[in-house]
Amino acid sequence: MNKINIVVIGGGTGTFVVLNGLKNFTEFNITALVSSTDSGGSTGILRDEFGILPPGDLRQCLVALSTLDPKVVSLRDLFNYRFNRGGEGIKGHSFGNLFLTALTDITKSEIKAIKIAKKILKVRGDVFPITLNKCNLCAEYENGEILFGEHEIDEPKYPHDCNLRIKKVFLDKNAEIYSEAKKIILNADVILIGPGDLYTSLIANLVVNGVSESILQSKGKFIYVVNLVTKFGQTTNYTAKDHLDEITKYAKKEPDFVFINSSKLPDDILEKYRLENAFPVIDDLPNNQKNIVRGDFLANEIIKKNKGDILKRSLIRHDGYKISREIINILHRHRYMH
Amino acid sequence: MNKINIVVIGGGTGTFVVLNGLKNFTEFNITALVSSTDSGGSTGILRDEFGILPPGDLRQCLVALSTLDPKVVSLRDLFNYRFNRGGEGIKGHSFGNLFLTALTDITKSEIKAIKIAKKILKVRGDVFPITLNKCNLCAEYENGEILFGEHEIDEPKYPHDCNLRIKKVFLDKNAEIYSEAKKIILNADVILIGPGDLYTSLIANLVVNGVSESILQSKGKFIYVVNLVTKFGQTTNYTAKDHLDEITKYAKKEPDFVFINSSKLPDDILEKYRLENAFPVIDDLPNNQKNIVRGDFLANEIIKKNKGDILKRSLIRHDGYKISREIINILHRHRYMH
Repeated sequence: MNKINIVVIGGGTGTFVVLNGLKNFTEFNITALVSSTDSGGSTGILRDEFGILPPGDLRQCLVALSTLDPKVVSLRDLFNYRFNRGGEGIKGHSFGNLFLTALTDITKSEIKAIKIAKKILKVRGDVFPITLNKCNLCAEYENGEILFGEHEIDEPKYPHDCNLRIKKVFLDKNAEIYSEAKKIILNADVILIGPGDLYTSLIANLVVNGVSESILQSKGKFIYVVNLVTKFGQTTNYTAKDHLDEITKYAKKEPDFVFINSSKLPDDILEKYRLENAFPVIDDLPNNQKNIVRGDFLANEIIKKNKGDILKRSLIRHDGYKISREIINILHRHRYMH
Repeated sequence: MNKINIVVIGGGTGTFVVLNGLKNFTEFNITALVSSTDSGGSTGILRDEFGILPPGDLRQCLVALSTLDPKVVSLRDLFNYRFNRGGEGIKGHSFGNLFLTALTDITKSEIKAIKIAKKILKVRGDVFPITLNKCNLCAEYENGEILFGEHEIDEPKYPHDCNLRIKKVFLDKNAEIYSEAKKIILNADVILIGPGDLYTSLIANLVVNGVSESILQSKGKFIYVVNLVTKFGQTTNYTAKDHLDEITKYAKKEPDFVFINSSKLPDDILEKYRLENAFPVIDDLPNNQKNIVRGDFLANEIIKKNKGDILKRSLIRHDGYKISREIINILHRHRYMH
């Protein structure tokens, strides 16, 4: 039986979770395509100072696909390590980001750096940036305000009104899809997008020239996984349909399948989200439509924040295994294996 | 034939050169014992901020003994990489130092960190700190002045008079030899000290409790390699005999053999050293004494400074191969192989 070529488009924690699940299924040939617009934290500093593509999401995907034994201290742990001391300069930096930065500086190529990191981390599958062009994500809000840079959009500063809807997102420069990424989308059996921050992790990829065109040309099934909760300032009050409409608009194609979690989120966790003005995404997608796949996609364990971590992490997550299994089911059901 | 157990005591560039040579001779079982008092540059910052043993010299020794192909970009290159951008905090840091720091923080043990790094770098031989106790080197000068910290002694600041002789060096705290280091010295066939900065790289080890005692108890041949040039402020005007006397004083044992280079140093290089007030070490050791081994120990190639390197590097160096060969010769000549 031939393997299922699956390409995961994204970059953030949601992509990490999905990759972590997929890698346990030998059925898949996995490639992660990672947005190139991250501009926050350790990544933002390194990107500014070294003129490289943002390393953070590439690093996370490499770690997700690493087959090194998590029980043995290894480079995998180092990649996840964040300096929690070391003065203003080192503190907060992810070791993996420094690793990719140094390798990129030595080899003068992000692609070569990833290749070496892949080998060292014993990565199953591939990880590529969606574009090699250095660019920034911009968002225009319903009142005409424009924010520049993914980090700004992700965590808008006062006096930005987080109830404003995003009218559109775009890149500050023309960016072309990386040739290898294009090939992989064209040859994919499954193109998975989501879960993840709608604009800053997912659509950040779709606005790169050639991405939506490649998805359209590909024979692969296009699957979108709807987020569990809204994100204040980015998807405030967005329903599932709002999410889906935006994906459809930027992908210029309606997903062949939409996965949406139907199992209940724990009350105590929802209380914590409420403090951040985040709420469960309301499922207002049509019933009795075969392409809307409802099911339990929720991870059983609750995620604790990492010590020394400067990024906010989701408290509840999707379960990469459950998503992987559903993908396999769907392909079987549609007798779509070649 | 049994292997020759050789232990190299030191830490700086001289030790790196020797290890680089030794590792090419299958005759040797190599262990490097590294001083724990380095306090300059990237190492000094990390040591202060993380409360770990200074990583710099350990890193250099690990790289020296790495068997990874130097023609392929690998972790070996990463270990040698120094960030040349990245703001005040990252700039100047050695990647290898950050690597060892992160690993030490994760495993809570310098020894475990070294073990993992050894594996990753495919190190032939062993590398240990001479002591696990965190301590600083102090120097008392002939006028009674005391400088605190290896970096201060290495590069004294104005108004310190660099013509002053060092009366004695000592540690600010009691430090005990690391148990493994002790075992290795006791079982050694050869105990090699030098070349290297006399006080800050070599004697910095001998002042640790138990080191000179272990050398005395060991049946191993004690070999000292005299430096090529003096170092302004540390060994200003020191002759070979001055060097040897200091080693003998702190080791509490006269070396069984003294290696001293007899080939001429290139004039243009000497000119450059002269600008740093460094001069060739004058050979005033006795003639016709079998334990004084004169020969060509000079590296043929001239060493260029590394870009982005914040440490001063020797312009001429010993040749680790030539030293290795001479050690093997001596052991053969003295029918000392067991």
